[in-house]
Amino acid sequence: MSISMHSASAPVFVRMFSNLLVWLDKAQAHAEVRKFDANNFVGLRLAPDMLPFARQIQIASDAAKGCMARLAGVEAPKWDDNEATLADLRARVQKTIDYVKSFSAAQIDGSEGREITIPMRSGEPLKFDGEAYLKHYATPNFYFHSTTAYALLRHAGVEIGKGDFLGGR
Amino acid sequence: MSISMHSASAPVFVRMFSNLLVWLDKAQAHAEVRKFDANNFVGLRLAPDMLPFARQIQIASDAAKGCMARLAGVEAPKWDDNEATLADLRARVQKTIDYVKSFSAAQIDGSEGREITIPMRSGEPLKFDGEAYLKHYATPNFYFHSTTAYALLRHAGVEIGKGDFLGGR
Repeated sequence: MSISMHSASAPVFVRMFSNLLVWLDKAQAHAEVRKFDANNFVGLRLAPDMLPFARQIQIASDAAKGCMARLAGVEAPKWDDNEATLADLRARVQKTIDYVKSFSAAQIDGSEGREITIPMRSGEPLKFDGEAYLKHYATPNFYFHSTTAYALLRHAGVEIGKGDFLGGR
Repeated sequence: MSISMHSASAPVFVRMFSNLLVWLDKAQAHAEVRKFDANNFVGLRLAPDMLPFARQIQIASDAAKGCMARLAGVEAPKWDDNEATLADLRARVQKTIDYVKSFSAAQIDGSEGREITIPMRSGEPLKFDGEAYLKHYATPNFYFHSTTAYALLRHAGVEIGKGDFLGGR
């Protein structure tokens, strides 16, 4: 017994992004109670030299999308990073969930040893086998940006807690 | 082919906590350049009703420790959460790495179907099989607190970047 590559990837991305949709609901509700434009969340940053909320979600989306495509050995679709509203971000998250779900287990399973090459903006590309890529690059990158999106909302006063992060209750 | 439960857990925790030791080095160096007490990081919070830096590391430590113990079916040691300095936190992170490494693959592999029960402070305990516990509870909880620790340092001006988060370069 062990974990298949599909089981270690697709449900992890789908669950966390489904949780993210709940955080967006709570951000929207928070803005309505406090009577500010919910789209003000889109540009929030934890520090002036950190990426804004929308980019955190876009990069988490790309991490999940790119992971599924690379493990399956197909070309990932290119999505414009033009989300400007909370509704746009919700649609991006849902589109990502749908894309992840579009892969069958058979397309992903057996990709443990697949050679994965990630081009870098500068320097040598990163090379992994499929298992190391999933465990040490795609998954932590996905959680990094999902958690930073959560932290931004939490920092901004949205009433979300660990249960909303982990979901499934 | 597939991922073993040991391979999906131990190296993930060890790698991220090894990365965290580098962030602590950079936090220490930042404090020395700016001439403030590096232990000031220990109590930092992203919001007044969020847990401080030390607790983020303690909970990430407990997530890794508890995961290994539960998957192996042994009792986790209880560690006092009394870290008060950056050096204490470094020791806690190293102790966690050593504890995770103390498990053999044979102790963890085959735990996919093991029944895991997490007592909750209020309400019904959470129940998972080993695979769901690892993927949907222990791992996201570990990354949640590790990322929040990173975000706190980053927010406080420490010069760390994505490469320090992902490590291994």
